[in-house]
Order: sequence, then structure tokens, then C-alpha cells
Amino acid sequence: MPSYTAPVNDIQFVLHALLDAPSQDIPGYSELDADFTAAVLEEAGKIAGNVLAPLNAVGDREGCVLENGVVRTPTGFKDAFDQMKEGGWTALDCDPEFGGQGMPVLLGTAVGELFSGANQSFTMYQGLTHGAYSAIHAHGTEAQKAKWLPRMVSCDWTGTMNLTEPHCGTDLGLMRTKAVPQDDGSYRITGQKIFISAGDHDMSANVVHLVLAKIPGGPEGIKGVSLFIVPKFLVDDEGTIGARNGVSVGKLEEKMGIHGNSTCVMNYDEAEGYLLGSEHKGMRAMFTMMNEARLGVAMQGMAQAEAAYQNAVIYAKDRLQGRAVTGAENPDGPADPLIVHPDVRRNLMDQKSFVEGARAFMLWGANLLDRSHRMNDAEAEGLVSLLTPVLKGFLTDKGFECAVAAQQVYGGHGYIEEWGMSQFARDARITQIYEGANGVQALDLVGRKLAADGGKHVMGFFELVKAFIKENEGDEALKADFLEPLKSASKDLQAAGMFFMQHGMKNPNAALSGSYDFMHLFGHVCLGLMWARMAKAASTALASQTGDAAFYETKLATGRYYMARQLPATKMHLARIESGAAPVMALSAAAF
Amino acid sequence: MPSYTAPVNDIQFVLHALLDAPSQDIPGYSELDADFTAAVLEEAGKIAGNVLAPLNAVGDREGCVLENGVVRTPTGFKDAFDQMKEGGWTALDCDPEFGGQGMPVLLGTAVGELFSGANQSFTMYQGLTHGAYSAIHAHGTEAQKAKWLPRMVSCDWTGTMNLTEPHCGTDLGLMRTKAVPQDDGSYRITGQKIFISAGDHDMSANVVHLVLAKIPGGPEGIKGVSLFIVPKFLVDDEGTIGARNGVSVGKLEEKMGIHGNSTCVMNYDEAEGYLLGSEHKGMRAMFTMMNEARLGVAMQGMAQAEAAYQNAVIYAKDRLQGRAVTGAENPDGPADPLIVHPDVRRNLMDQKSFVEGARAFMLWGANLLDRSHRMNDAEAEGLVSLLTPVLKGFLTDKGFECAVAAQQVYGGHGYIEEWGMSQFARDARITQIYEGANGVQALDLVGRKLAADGGKHVMGFFELVKAFIKENEGDEALKADFLEPLKSASKDLQAAGMFFMQHGMKNPNAALSGSYDFMHLFGHVCLGLMWARMAKAASTALASQTGDAAFYETKLATGRYYMARQLPATKMHLARIESGAAPVMALSAAAF
Repeated sequence: MPSYTAPVNDIQFVLHALLDAPSQDIPGYSELDADFTAAVLEEAGKIAGNVLAPLNAVGDREGCVLENGVVRTPTGFKDAFDQMKEGGWTALDCDPEFGGQGMPVLLGTAVGELFSGANQSFTMYQGLTHGAYSAIHAHGTEAQKAKWLPRMVSCDWTGTMNLTEPHCGTDLGLMRTKAVPQDDGSYRITGQKIFISAGDHDMSANVVHLVLAKIPGGPEGIKGVSLFIVPKFLVDDEGTIGARNGVSVGKLEEKMGIHGNSTCVMNYDEAEGYLLGSEHKGMRAMFTMMNEARLGVAMQGMAQAEAAYQNAVIYAKDRLQGRAVTGAENPDGPADPLIVHPDVRRNLMDQKSFVEGARAFMLWGANLLDRSHRMNDAEAEGLVSLLTPVLKGFLTDKGFECAVAAQQVYGGHGYIEEWGMSQFARDARITQIYEGANGVQALDLVGRKLAADGGKHVMGFFELVKAFIKENEGDEALKADFLEPLKSASKDLQAAGMFFMQHGMKNPNAALSGSYDFMHLFGHVCLGLMWARMAKAASTALASQTGDAAFYETKLATGRYYMARQLPATKMHLARIESGAAPVMALSAAAF
Repeated sequence: MPSYTAPVNDIQFVLHALLDAPSQDIPGYSELDADFTAAVLEEAGKIAGNVLAPLNAVGDREGCVLENGVVRTPTGFKDAFDQMKEGGWTALDCDPEFGGQGMPVLLGTAVGELFSGANQSFTMYQGLTHGAYSAIHAHGTEAQKAKWLPRMVSCDWTGTMNLTEPHCGTDLGLMRTKAVPQDDGSYRITGQKIFISAGDHDMSANVVHLVLAKIPGGPEGIKGVSLFIVPKFLVDDEGTIGARNGVSVGKLEEKMGIHGNSTCVMNYDEAEGYLLGSEHKGMRAMFTMMNEARLGVAMQGMAQAEAAYQNAVIYAKDRLQGRAVTGAENPDGPADPLIVHPDVRRNLMDQKSFVEGARAFMLWGANLLDRSHRMNDAEAEGLVSLLTPVLKGFLTDKGFECAVAAQQVYGGHGYIEEWGMSQFARDARITQIYEGANGVQALDLVGRKLAADGGKHVMGFFELVKAFIKENEGDEALKADFLEPLKSASKDLQAAGMFFMQHGMKNPNAALSGSYDFMHLFGHVCLGLMWARMAKAASTALASQTGDAAFYETKLATGRYYMARQLPATKMHLARIESGAAPVMALSAAAF
């Protein structure tokens, strides 16, 4: 069975050597000194490794079961959930006004990686609750917040997000679920929602569904969609749980992975619901949480890659097979361990250099979110909005790819469920799909974010890259291995943007045909920037002769690998983009 | 539930417009006129679409069950297997002396794609039998051939290949299974083999296991391995089935996919076995079949991609979501079909251009095998040996990637098992692992095949590309869209080979660190060559104004897509290769 060890040192490196979090002028950051974050991460790491990881395979094997209308979670999930609640882990980055600990998203994301990496299905129950919490926190009335939030912060009640219907996912304007206003100000919700993660289960006393629905007589399409709070059990003004609401589980879906999470078809039959935010402004309410939710999925993708990588390394060191081409390295044994073979290393380095770069990118994203939320910083808000589809699309695509690569290290044993490597790949696969499929992320990036505010934010990103290169070009070691590849990759990204500007106005398909490649190109440049910054941080630490020199040397070598062997992908993506719309759009639908 | 339609027109295009099979001077090819191959493919296509495809999901859902020591296959498998036998499909490319129809491997592979695409798990029972048949056919005594082959050709008895043991897969020298010689010339086989596909089942009267084992006192390691015929039931000289042999199923493996195939742990307990070929020459016997077996796995990879693609297209045309950015294309409907969106097309074109190119490459490989086997053509043998790891590694990696891409078109529905798209990805995944994991293919290519016979075969390949370009450079349309990209990609491949020559002698790791990229680079050049040739064939057909002009136009457009949007990957692979061993080998094992 796979194991999980919290990568505390690497997260600490990002929080402190790279981001120097405690010295940032963001409210709440001064508390994040190295001892504090290490203590939090160590504690979270113990739960992740000792409690959640052992349940990962259990969840996969047992799945959830629908019995008499109620979902039963896998053996051990409820106990573990109680431990998470008791430890206060569900409240970490929630508002103290409602029982939260008020920590920044930065720390919440770092801790979230540990829980997700250890057990994605399990952690989703809390993750969805956090999403619903954020929506109510941002758009609820004072009374709504007081009524719902404290129990959601503690996860005594969990939450869900109900968007998708059988005939519509991405295009929510086609939605059919109805909300009919009642005399008492409430609504009656009727319709069917599908793919509702954590839709029902046996770990909390109530489930607070956030449901998108249309109020009859409202505007057509997406502009007539409103958001409602629809609890499983009604709750009176004293917060006491009452009668069952008209909400039921239609069925549980059989899925490729995340078996430990209950993916429900939810039926609403004149269920009592309460408008959250304004009538017909439901999509706007959803959008305000989107950056954070998508960052969360990016985190899941990279977290599965980390977990899979750890186990690939263990196997590669343990499994004896063949001899090193340069001479036996384990001459007394019957064969050398897998890790001596260059192609096994190539595979492991692909994973390692991605995971560490992705972690830095993700935590930088969380840092920008904090800056945006806690300081109302429009620039940070614009930049993180631009980067969000890149984070979500690139980190989940590559995260899945890495989980598959880790599985490959095991050979035939990777294909057998017993070893657990298949689960990493199957669980990671969903991250490319939910919270906006990655094609939709690419569309959001190229069709919306790139030109937002007159292209100001993408220009800001390029300035950032340029400034870093300029600042450091006196450093010869950094220059050859990091700055020059970064400069070249960044130029490719600029050229792609230029191509879109020149051709996209006349023919939007010329831009949209390259959207997916652009998202990946952008992702590589972001990881290139992260690696260049990390290389600088590692060099600085080495020069100061403090800390773990071996760690910093490894960091530099891993960065060099990324720059030399991953970043060249930017040229391929640029070539694909510059081939324009013609190859993509040439065929009639009938010719496919 | 997914459907399957045999791509008869496309296979016919490859067999006739591209390869002009009936005019080739290979014995047996003159029979392959267009009417004949069309008739065979149509018939096979009916079985594939009507009998095998509907059982694909059944096999995935039910899996195989071990009951009282015997494996029960999924509902309907036995009936379907009987239909395959009655139709003579198991005997298609077997030796007429033993009841086969004597068709070339070319036709066998074309038909095999249909069966594998419709139901990979099911088709493996026959595929493994064919592998064992080939081994006995190549290395058996006359008596052995007479005894075993006729029932294996008819699939009354099926076969298996037993190589892997719990502690060794790739490195078979570590093998522990023993074969002790008996006075009557037979051997007693004792040991455990794992991952034995089709190891036991209820569809045939006997199972003929080919088992690798060591005769005590023989040479150490891989040089002391011999191959044995070990039947489930003993058979007397009249061919009558007798007592149960000391062979039993230890357990069935739970796998990521191919649930319909029984993957067994096989226990041999003093089982009676008969030496096949010479003592200690077991690996040589296995190697003679390897090209064909690996071509078979390449075929499985591309066949899953074809099947997944077909269903992605159906969904993309059917599912309404969003509007075309250039204006509604389905104005009377609530939304446009997915296929109007550029990124959905980009995805589908990636799949289509791979599948069709891969099919041509695979059938060219089969063609070379026929030339090698039926004419003892050493040049063809050398070329197909060189191309085999490329076929296996590239076609299965890309086949899996395409199956995943097809699943993506379905959004959330792709993740739900109900729709069947997950199965294509899960089944395709094994093709990257078995019959030599793809890292081992890359090692075989760079470490062995590239330099074989003084590099003669790779030079031959480059000559072939050069000659084609030279022959056709007068054709302006072909030149810009096909010949120039092919030339550029081929140069990248040559540069990579040159890099290996310059650095690999001093430091083998410099070559082996780039082996995987080289395999992919080579694969792209092969598909580029195939597309250039197909473009020429399509242009010629268009010019002659015969046949289906729309088909040829589509072929050209699809080829242009491959050249413009896939072939640029060669530069990335070259850059990775040219970064050499340092980035890959820098870290100590402890630093991972």
C-alpha cells in the first residue's frame, strides 16, 4: 500500500526562502514565521500520513454505498473526519467571527496539499464545505451567515455546490431547475442536479446545498440564474435541526476514481430554499469564488503527483532489475535498483521538477489571492485572475501525466490495484474535468483573461519576468542555466500573444484554436519563473552557508532539469499556435 | 454505451492506395485484391461491431471470477468466442498445414485492429494463443507441432506466455522457476508466474502454457533460461485430453482495466512440461516472436484510440453546449453542438491525425514483417526490428493519450463509468506496460537497434525518407505542406542520432538519458512519413477523379494537421536529448 510523507521541508522552502511570507505586508502574514508554519505543517502532516493516507485505498476499494436513501462512506472515514474537526483543521482559514482561525489562504493551501495528497476523496468533503462557506460568507445576509456559517466552519454541517444538470455543465444557461418564490420570502426548488460531490454522506448532521436555479419569469439563459441555500434538514431560527427538506439522492455515480467521495444525483422536489445574494445574479456569486476553487483543484492535481512521485521513488530504490550501464552499483545483490537506469531517472526527474515547480506556482497564486482579498489589491486580483486558468489547467494536466508516469515506474505492478499506483492516476484524472474542464480554462484564459483591462495583467506578468531577469543578469551561474531559458520561453509566450492579437480580431478561431497550447505554454513559463526564483533563493542560501546545503544543491539541480528538459516545450506550443485556425477548422463536422 | 464501427474505408485506403498490397511481390499478397480485403474487413467488422463491442462494457463490469480453482469469464464471452472460432477468425494468418488460412500478417493485423478496438480484453484470449502458436510453430519439433498446433489454430485450446515472476519482469535472468529433467525426456516445472493474461478461463478445453524456467545446473542468469510447453490438462499421443497437470491458478489480479481478461497468478507444482527448442535457449525462442507480439500491442494501443475517437465524435456532434464564437450554427436549437468549438476540434484532430497515421505505420510494419518472413528479406527484417520499439512505444503512449483526450470531450460524463469512455483509457493503459514497458522499448531502440549491423537499418530508414522527398519535390502542394515539415523533422532525428554517436561512446548515459525522447521523435518522423505518403496517394487519387473525393480531401486536411501541429514536437524532443546526461544523472539516489 502506498505511503505518504508530508513534504514539509519543500513547503517551508517556498513559504520562507522563496516568498518570505512573514515579511510581506499582508494582514495576518506576520504570524507566519518559520517555526509556526513548520509546527502547523508537521501536525497536519501527521494526520495526513497516519490517518488519511491509510484510508485512501480503503475509500477506493469500498466506495460509497446508497442505503435507504442515505449514503454510507467507507470504513474509517467518519472517525477521521471527527479527528479533522477536533483538530480545528476545517476552520484553519475561515473567518474568526464564525469560529475560524483566520489564517491566510497561503497557509490553508499549503496544509490542503497535505490532506489532498494523502486522500483526495476524503478531503473533498471538507473542500466542498469550504466552497459553500465562502459563497455564503461573500453573499449572505448577516442572518444567513450567523445561521449557517459556524456549523460549516466546524464541519458539523457540510456543504455542496449544485451546478450541473444532465443536459448542461459548461453552458449553465440551459439550466431547468426552478425556484418558485413563496409568500414567506423562501423559494420552492424543483429539479435534478448531477455530479454533486459530497452530495450526501454519514459524517455530518446536515448538508447545506448551494443550488443554482431559475426563478420563473426571469431573464433567459445565464442571466436568469439565481443561487439558493437548500439544506438537507430544515433548521429553525435557534439553529435546531428540524424536518427533512424535499432533497433526496437519486443515485450514486460509478466513477473512474475518487470512489471515497459520494458523487450524487440530487433530486429537489419543492425543496425549501433561501436566496443567496440577488435574484438572477447567481452566476456572479459563483464567479467570486471561482479563483479560489480553481486554485484548490490545481492543488489536488499537483498533490496527487507528489504522492505518486513519493511512491515511485520508494519503488525505484527498492526494486532490483538489470544493471547500470556504467557498471554494477549493487554488485553484491542480484541486480541494481531501478533508480540507476537513466530512463527511470528521466521519468522521476520529470515528476520531481514538475511537482516542486507546481508547488511554488500554487503557493504564489495563494499569496496573490491573500493580497487581493486582504488588501483589496486590484493588481494582485487581476494577476491571479489571469493565472487561475493556467494554474487549474496546467497543474491538473501535468499532475495527471505525472501520476501516470509514476505508475509506469512500477511496470506491471503499477497496473494492479493492490499497489495503489493506479488510484493516483484515476483520482488525478477528475481534476482535469471538474470545476471547469481544462478546455474551458483555456477558453477563459484566451477568450477573457488575456484581454481583460486592456491586457494590463498579462503585460504586468511580462514585466515581472523581465524585471527578475534584469535584476539578476549579473549572476553568471543563474544566467546560463535559468535566466536565458526563461527569457527564451517568455519570448515564445509573447509571440503567441502577439499572434492572437494580429489574427484573433479578424478571426476569433485563430486565437481559440491555439488556446489549449497557450495555456500550456503559459504554464511552462510560470514554472520557469518559479524555478529561476527558487534557484536564486537556493543560491543565496548556499552562499550564506546556513541551512541544509544538500537540500539547496538538489533544488538547483532539479531546477536545471526543468529549464533544460521541460521548458523547450514552449517552442512546440508556439509552432502549434502559429499554424493558426486553418488546420483545426478545415473539416466539416461530417468529415470527422 | 459506446459503439464501434469498423473503419473499413480507411484500412482499405492504406492497404490499396498507400501500400498497393496486391502488386507487391510477397507470396500470398496477390490474393489481397480490394474486393477480397473489403469482404474480409466487412465481415470482421460485423462481428466486431455487433458481437464483441456490446460485450466490452460487460467484461469491464463483471470481470473474471475465480470459482473452485476455475476462472469464469464474463457473460457472453464464451458464445462470442465460439462465433469467432466457427467463423475461422482465429485461423486467419496461421499455417494451412495446421488448419490455418495462410493469410499474410498484413491482413491479420488489419482484422486484429477491428477485434481489439471493439473489445481488447476478449481479443487477448485469441492473441495470446496466437503468440504461443507462433512460438511452437517456430521452435517445436514436428511431433510437437502436430500435437499442439491444430487445436490452437482453431482455439479449441488456447495458449499463454509465462515470463514474469513476482520479483522479476524486465530482468528475466533473476527467474526462479525450475525445470527438472525426467527420465522420459519431459521436465517437472515448479515455480510461480504472475501477470499471466488469459491464464485460465472457461472458453476452451485446454490451456497450453509456454513457461520460461531454469534447468538446474545450467548457466547463470538469462543464459540459463529454457522454454517449456506446460498444458493445463495432459494430452496423450492421440490428442485426447487426460489428467489435470500440476498447474493451478493462485489468484486473479484486480487491475485498472482489461477486466474481461483473466490475469492470473499461475502456480506450477511439479507440472509436466516439454522442452520447446533447445535447452537454455528460451530467450532466443521468445525473441523471434517479439517483433510480431510488439506489433500486436502497438495495434491494441491505436485500436483503443480509434474506438475512443469514434465515440468522442458522436458525442461532440450530439451534445449541445455554448455557441460558436463566429455565430450560432444551430440557431433553432438551445445551443450549438460541441464540435463547433475550436478547442474541441483541436482535440478531435489530434486524435484523428494520430489514429490514421498510426494505422498506416502499423500496417507498413506488418507489411515489412511479411516481407521478412515470407521472402527471408534481411533488409525488411532489419528495418522492422528497428521500427518495432518505435511502433510499440509510440503507438501505445499516444494511443493512451488519445483515449484520455476522447474521454475529455465528454466532460464529467467521461469520468462516469456508465458512458464507457473511462474504459478505453483504462484498457489502453496496459499497452504501455506489457510486452516490455515503454522505457524498455526505448532502451532496446537506442541501446541495441540503432547500432545493429553497423547502423545500417537506421541509415536505410533515412534513405527511404530522403528518396521519397526527392522523388516528389516537384509537387508544389505536397512540398510546402508535407515534404518540408518531414525533411525538418527527419533532420531532427538525424541530429539526435548524431548526438548519441558523439557522446554515447564516452558516456552511455548521454544516449540513454535521451532514449525515451528519441523513441517519440522517431515515432513522429514515422507518422510524418506516413502522412506524406498518404497525402501523395490521396492527391493521386483526386487527380485521377476516381473514388470518393470527399474522403481524399479529408485525408489531405488531416495530414496537414499532423504536419503543422504534431510534427513540431520533434524539436522539443531534440532539445531534451541534446541537454545530455547531466540534468538526468545529477542527483544521488538519496536526493530523490
